[in-house]
Amino acid sequence: MNDKTINSIAESLVPKNYLALANDARQERDKLVRILLEKVNFIKKIPHDGWNETTIEYLIAELAMLDSNNFNSRCGVGEREGRVICDLVRRRHYNFAHGVGRSGNLTAAQPKAAGSTLMANLTNSLVRDLIRTIGVPNCSSAVVVPMATGMTVMLTLRAIHGQRPDSKFVLWSRVDQQSCFKSILAAGLTPIVIDSVLSKENTTPKQSVPFATDLAAFEAKIQELGVDKVCCLLATTSCFAPRNSDDIIELAKLSAKYNVPHVVNNAYGLQSTFFCHQLERGSRAGRIDAFIQSTDKNLLVPVGGAIVAGFDKTTVDSVARLYPGRASGSQSLDVLLTLLTLGINGYQRLMKERKALHQLLLGGLSDLAKSYNERILPCNNPISIAMTLETFKTQSVQLEMIGSMLQKRGVSGCRVVTTNDSKTIDGHLFTAWGAHSSMAQVPYLTCSAALGITRDEISHFLSKLNEVLGKYRSKYVDQE
Amino acid sequence: MNDKTINSIAESLVPKNYLALANDARQERDKLVRILLEKVNFIKKIPHDGWNETTIEYLIAELAMLDSNNFNSRCGVGEREGRVICDLVRRRHYNFAHGVGRSGNLTAAQPKAAGSTLMANLTNSLVRDLIRTIGVPNCSSAVVVPMATGMTVMLTLRAIHGQRPDSKFVLWSRVDQQSCFKSILAAGLTPIVIDSVLSKENTTPKQSVPFATDLAAFEAKIQELGVDKVCCLLATTSCFAPRNSDDIIELAKLSAKYNVPHVVNNAYGLQSTFFCHQLERGSRAGRIDAFIQSTDKNLLVPVGGAIVAGFDKTTVDSVARLYPGRASGSQSLDVLLTLLTLGINGYQRLMKERKALHQLLLGGLSDLAKSYNERILPCNNPISIAMTLETFKTQSVQLEMIGSMLQKRGVSGCRVVTTNDSKTIDGHLFTAWGAHSSMAQVPYLTCSAALGITRDEISHFLSKLNEVLGKYRSKYVDQE
Amino acid sequence: MNDKTINSIAESLVPKNYLALANDARQERDKLVRILLEKVNFIKKIPHDGWNETTIEYLIAELAMLDSNNFNSRCGVGEREGRVICDLVRRRHYNFAHGVGRSGNLTAAQPKAAGSTLMANLTNSLVRDLIRTIGVPNCSSAVVVPMATGMTVMLTLRAIHGQRPDSKFVLWSRVDQQSCFKSILAAGLTPIVIDSVLSKENTTPKQSVPFATDLAAFEAKIQELGVDKVCCLLATTSCFAPRNSDDIIELAKLSAKYNVPHVVNNAYGLQSTFFCHQLERGSRAGRIDAFIQSTDKNLLVPVGGAIVAGFDKTTVDSVARLYPGRASGSQSLDVLLTLLTLGINGYQRLMKERKALHQLLLGGLSDLAKSYNERILPCNNPISIAMTLETFKTQSVQLEMIGSMLQKRGVSGCRVVTTNDSKTIDGHLFTAWGAHSSMAQVPYLTCSAALGITRDEISHFLSKLNEVLGKYRSKYVDQE
Amino acid sequence: MNDKTINSIAESLVPKNYLALANDARQERDKLVRILLEKVNFIKKIPHDGWNETTIEYLIAELAMLDSNNFNSRCGVGEREGRVICDLVRRRHYNFAHGVGRSGNLTAAQPKAAGSTLMANLTNSLVRDLIRTIGVPNCSSAVVVPMATGMTVMLTLRAIHGQRPDSKFVLWSRVDQQSCFKSILAAGLTPIVIDSVLSKENTTPKQSVPFATDLAAFEAKIQELGVDKVCCLLATTSCFAPRNSDDIIELAKLSAKYNVPHVVNNAYGLQSTFFCHQLERGSRAGRIDAFIQSTDKNLLVPVGGAIVAGFDKTTVDSVARLYPGRASGSQSLDVLLTLLTLGINGYQRLMKERKALHQLLLGGLSDLAKSYNERILPCNNPISIAMTLETFKTQSVQLEMIGSMLQKRGVSGCRVVTTNDSKTIDGHLFTAWGAHSSMAQVPYLTCSAALGITRDEISHFLSKLNEVLGKYRSKYVDQE
Repeated sequence: MNDKTINSIAESLVPKNYLALANDARQERDKLVRILLEKVNFIKKIPHDGWNETTIEYLIAELAMLDSNNFNSRCGVGEREGRVICDLVRRRHYNFAHGVGRSGNLTAAQPKAAGSTLMANLTNSLVRDLIRTIGVPNCSSAVVVPMATGMTVMLTLRAIHGQRPDSKFVLWSRVDQQSCFKSILAAGLTPIVIDSVLSKENTTPKQSVPFATDLAAFEAKIQELGVDKVCCLLATTSCFAPRNSDDIIELAKLSAKYNVPHVVNNAYGLQSTFFCHQLERGSRAGRIDAFIQSTDKNLLVPVGGAIVAGFDKTTVDSVARLYPGRASGSQSLDVLLTLLTLGINGYQRLMKERKALHQLLLGGLSDLAKSYNERILPCNNPISIAMTLETFKTQSVQLEMIGSMLQKRGVSGCRVVTTNDSKTIDGHLFTAWGAHSSMAQVPYLTCSAALGITRDEISHFLSKLNEVLGKYRSKYVDQE
Repeated sequence: MNDKTINSIAESLVPKNYLALANDARQERDKLVRILLEKVNFIKKIPHDGWNETTIEYLIAELAMLDSNNFNSRCGVGEREGRVICDLVRRRHYNFAHGVGRSGNLTAAQPKAAGSTLMANLTNSLVRDLIRTIGVPNCSSAVVVPMATGMTVMLTLRAIHGQRPDSKFVLWSRVDQQSCFKSILAAGLTPIVIDSVLSKENTTPKQSVPFATDLAAFEAKIQELGVDKVCCLLATTSCFAPRNSDDIIELAKLSAKYNVPHVVNNAYGLQSTFFCHQLERGSRAGRIDAFIQSTDKNLLVPVGGAIVAGFDKTTVDSVARLYPGRASGSQSLDVLLTLLTLGINGYQRLMKERKALHQLLLGGLSDLAKSYNERILPCNNPISIAMTLETFKTQSVQLEMIGSMLQKRGVSGCRVVTTNDSKTIDGHLFTAWGAHSSMAQVPYLTCSAALGITRDEISHFLSKLNEVLGKYRSKYVDQE
Repeated sequence: MNDKTINSIAESLVPKNYLALANDARQERDKLVRILLEKVNFIKKIPHDGWNETTIEYLIAELAMLDSNNFNSRCGVGEREGRVICDLVRRRHYNFAHGVGRSGNLTAAQPKAAGSTLMANLTNSLVRDLIRTIGVPNCSSAVVVPMATGMTVMLTLRAIHGQRPDSKFVLWSRVDQQSCFKSILAAGLTPIVIDSVLSKENTTPKQSVPFATDLAAFEAKIQELGVDKVCCLLATTSCFAPRNSDDIIELAKLSAKYNVPHVVNNAYGLQSTFFCHQLERGSRAGRIDAFIQSTDKNLLVPVGGAIVAGFDKTTVDSVARLYPGRASGSQSLDVLLTLLTLGINGYQRLMKERKALHQLLLGGLSDLAKSYNERILPCNNPISIAMTLETFKTQSVQLEMIGSMLQKRGVSGCRVVTTNDSKTIDGHLFTAWGAHSSMAQVPYLTCSAALGITRDEISHFLSKLNEVLGKYRSKYVDQE
Repeated sequence: MNDKTINSIAESLVPKNYLALANDARQERDKLVRILLEKVNFIKKIPHDGWNETTIEYLIAELAMLDSNNFNSRCGVGEREGRVICDLVRRRHYNFAHGVGRSGNLTAAQPKAAGSTLMANLTNSLVRDLIRTIGVPNCSSAVVVPMATGMTVMLTLRAIHGQRPDSKFVLWSRVDQQSCFKSILAAGLTPIVIDSVLSKENTTPKQSVPFATDLAAFEAKIQELGVDKVCCLLATTSCFAPRNSDDIIELAKLSAKYNVPHVVNNAYGLQSTFFCHQLERGSRAGRIDAFIQSTDKNLLVPVGGAIVAGFDKTTVDSVARLYPGRASGSQSLDVLLTLLTLGINGYQRLMKERKALHQLLLGGLSDLAKSYNERILPCNNPISIAMTLETFKTQSVQLEMIGSMLQKRGVSGCRVVTTNDSKTIDGHLFTAWGAHSSMAQVPYLTCSAALGITRDEISHFLSKLNEVLGKYRSKYVDQE
């Protein structure tokens, strides 16, 4: 309601003094909104504490009503007028229909859709504020892209390639997760896979799981292929143990030294302060053109969006400008609803809880490993944990059976890696597929304490794992 | 948003000129709201055309936020603070929690709940406007009561009794529907059942279904019991054919003549212009203290509310003032949502459609009756129709079987009346129960074309009825 | 989906093994539902732990689809077919439209509405289970009535009066809350107000706030008026301090001794184990015909419903049977959604928290009182607290100003009682209105720690109260 | 509920016979679901008539509950477990969280998400059925891609390029809409812009707006660049008048003749039977590898999705397989909800209405043109209409002012093209930007009767246009 509406309400409907008290509260709520949107605040700030649903829906409804498809007297004779025929669809999108961006730019304003424009730009501002607050203060630009991580990495590679049209190769530190590798292929570029090396601290005889980024190989490849032929270096932070994050600080230095772009796939890395600090330090020590992360894993929204962020606007803007045509606003809306619900406090509390639960899982798994004469593979991975399965190898059954047994017991997300499998993707052979390195030999299982995990899930998992390992050993191992 | 919020939105979020256009639309929408609520309009008017969902939900949300339970900084140390713990419940009530009314008056304003107060009073105003517009312009007061019709009749009787503490009897023109009769008992009063008489036009030899209000008996009873002992006359308009509406015009005259209150149970009569005009004429020719109708059947909302209306404020107000304590606001909200969705045009269109469909049903049923050597029982009932079943009587099975056969085929609401049954309610014997008169002898079935019925339902019903009657006749009647 | 649907799903849409895993989970969910509804369980049990929203909405949707208005091929030719024209209304009622009960009985099954019937009866069973579990194991029957407490007390009085048609008086231990008193009047009965007596422990000279139930006066009145003329004794448990609960154990004995019905207004007493135990003990020591409580304050749903409960089925059933016609199912639905969300654990956790927060409020207020040379009025009230305001009396302003000052600061629910006011309701004079006794002389303010109050509200209140008292004293008191 | 749950419901909750009747209706509803999903039906069929909301939400809820994030006892230790923290987000996605597809394939099944898999595959099947039914019976494959049209064209180009790695050029018949052109650039390919030629029927002296596809230029360019260097031909159907659809039948023949892929941007062409038939005929006469259309304009859902369809599975599958990683399921859900709501009848009714309204708009505009001495530019465009503005040219103001004046009056979507503007996109110069051809000279305005337009919008537009043209002429033209 506009202010004068309040003043014009008939006293026969409600006494003036009751209304006055209510209007105070109304103005208090509106002040929250004004602070969020107002001009003096160059950098929009995520509210300290989360808002309640009522206030959030109030804001969203007000924004949606600024779009032309929601004007009471609308008269559309264009080919795209934001008409939504199915009421269920209309409601679930809070009456937003025009999407975001405009032909040629994801962040451009739409004349027909002031509300959608506001919504998307506000979301981008709040996401940047989030990233800056939780550990990457150097970050200067962030855009929510309504495509999942893989496709967004692809778009980023294409944007970088657009500025280096003669380049052809992407130097990629191997990580056994298909979509990242496929992003390079989908971008029409040629991946150069760089295997990991044995890190110094991992050279104990038994330990054959090596995971340091092979910086020397990177440098050698740049020199071999020629700087102009290299589109960019592509590194990964968050990944399955026992692989560690790539050494993005050293890669950033390399990137700066040779003036070759450097893209970081920070897939689910925002949830960990460790990864955030690596990014910050990398940006200070050298060059990182863009880092990309999913919205689903980091912000606990449904799959479908990613964030491209950077330390200057150049690359982020060129990705936004490359996106042809309009795009879904649904992912931005999910992020906005979530950030306003959590507030910065809520998000940081989630991060803290996750860290504590990772310790809990690590402790529980260490005990379990010990009791089965296995061990936790050494690594610095703040999210994922790997436990060896050496004593479970048998002739009769595959170790993967352990995974199936867990799944039947309702456990999802625990993966068994035998190091025996190979996989060929588009002509590229990966030996020891799943283990991130052709040198891996020790079988293991991995599990993660990712954002949103609960104490109950961890204890349930540990008990089920114990049950399965016990059953497996007595049934298959002890029989041999 | 307050107006100054719009002006304070950062231009980095959306260009000023796009926002200006959107703000025009925003003000247009708000004008609708202002006209609805504003003070110069003594009598609130239902909008001509219905509003769209977005605008309606916008208004409702704004109203709810005026209640203290939705204040962002609320601090409640009372015993009733409108707290709602279950999110599903909160959402379905649009954040309203305080109910309506205040100890001792259904229409009193609540200091803690300016929004609920506004909502309820607005609804009452709009309901009055509806009643006045569709055929009872003389109506001067209407209140939505969050209890179904029977209970509301009971409360009205108690309110009237409060003003005539020495009275004891309610003179009631028999209609075979339990709740009305039970209302009298529940009110602690004694019902005097007045059977119907044969109306003149219904005196053909075969026709034994008589339905004129026995005005002479009413007058005789008033004289016999004494005016002061009679709490009120209780008449009924809408009912199952072949019963007609009571002659409320003549009863109104009687009421005026003897100065005895007159209450009309207009259960589902608002949907028919005929009943509306009877009420209007009755109010002009004599005295009607209150007429009561359900919200569910007349406004197509879920069961649970009723409207008490009157031609002066006295009785309606005394009913509202009798209600002890606070009451549910849920029924008012349903009515408000419905009236804003339909607009006055929408409601009148529904009425017109119903009238046309009643003719369709009557025509179809007349043809069917003829083909089975039955007939439509003569009456002026604008909603319900009765078709005789004389040729279907058999020794072996009960006529009620026809009802069951229809029900199995998905037909609901068709009733078979054999006139053979008796029923005793709280010591009162009703012979020929269901037929509204102890003199009824012809078996029949009734069906109605009530508000919201569709053309498809009618053709489906006629075809199913034909199928059932054919089957019944060949199976049971022809076998004898 | 029926089970065979699952089996018939095309493998081209989803692999069989993935579906099998999902179906396991589906059956697990359905088991929860089956346990809730199944026949072997004579007494339905509230789930131990609350259900998640998805499971609850699944159950509710399944129930609603059992009502005829939701049948895909419906054909209604009755006058009431559960049609809902406004989509917003339909959705907020989860497609329920038929209400509950049937002409003449709130708990009767509706042929057209198997789902609504199930919903209402299930709710009543769960409410009984709740009452039994939290402290009244002797309770054998409970019904949710879709009217707020006052109106439900009125209906209960009418039901009892129906069995004692010659009775006329209700003996009522004074409590200064309008709706209870008005319930008696609305029922057409005559209230006999019995003032409180000074309890022994309250006889210190300064203390003039006396609150024991005057048992002798009750007995004397029964003898004076005659047992047959007394409709019932009406006692109150939960109320504003410094009034205590009536001594319902002794009243129950009196009731048994004279064979006069005994109704307890347990308005918001379910939330306190103390009141529950009083009821249980009363039922064992003597006679309690029914106890009535609101759904809003005890179950944290919107205003509009009450629960009538009893120790045998007689009175509860007669209340249900007195209700004329169908009734709103909305209140039962709110209660069902809430109980399934909380589970019995959730409700008991709320009770525990409330008790602890009451202690917190009491402590804080005691400190504050001391600092202003005031005191907490002695009483056993487990919810409400009263603090004297003797040193704040001035010539110039009314003590009520303290209440307004609090309200302006966003505090609701704190009441100031001066003991100087009188009020006349329907010819009955109450001196010292608000103080529950004509003998009260000490001014005070009351506040409550009711179910759902938060720690923040208490600390906010204490700080605001301190601020207001300080300001008031320096401005008005110290100036004199 | 499973069937045995129904049987186990306690009779104390609801009578068996009432439940039996309700269960019949339940099974009837479930039959609808079974027919939709069942295996014997190789090609899933859109229901003839649309489903009601209740049935649709029932299906969607059941599907969502098959995803692991909704299992009651879930235990996730992976990095992606479909956790959704914000309740508003969870609800608006109907509890779906896992997205669709699996690393490396948009249509692959997800082990953790049987329901999402089912939902997405079902949607694709229904979309194919829709396309086949409304005019492209030869279509054999269709996939909903959760990216808007431009990005989907880009992905399709990349998929085709993957099979022709040495190719470099995309031959593109000019259409002045940025995103299509940008799709080529974003794909890293080089656009060869082929201007339109004057069609024979458009050679009247005054008429300088020529719009036949320059087939000779296409063929010449293939020969000039070399077949292997041409990635594909890229044609457009739906576009702004006076441009016509490209001659995709002849282009399809050319494509077949030279064995060069042929992609059709059918942006909003599904809504018109004319475009559908062109596609069908093209597929029979020659070669069309894929045709791409938006979900928003053709299915009236919010912006964000597109459909890639084809006449064999090769290209469609290769697009699906190119998509790296998981993708949003939100667009598929919107499409599914819409198709089930409309049914095939509903969609075809929309198409018919649109066609009729296009005639209405054309008639009205012709009359208006005549009255201002202007004319409708001749073309076969079934959606968009262009009216000349030759007599409105002035020295003082730009013709674009007409557009602004309309916009201020609430008209959106009407574009003024002066033919005087040029635009450079990524180094490519387009003269007469907006007019689709460098030879265009006549200024004009365009408007469209697109799917979902209403009769009111057309009459409102015609009246506003008349008002604006009159005002413009008298103010600016007549003054000169």
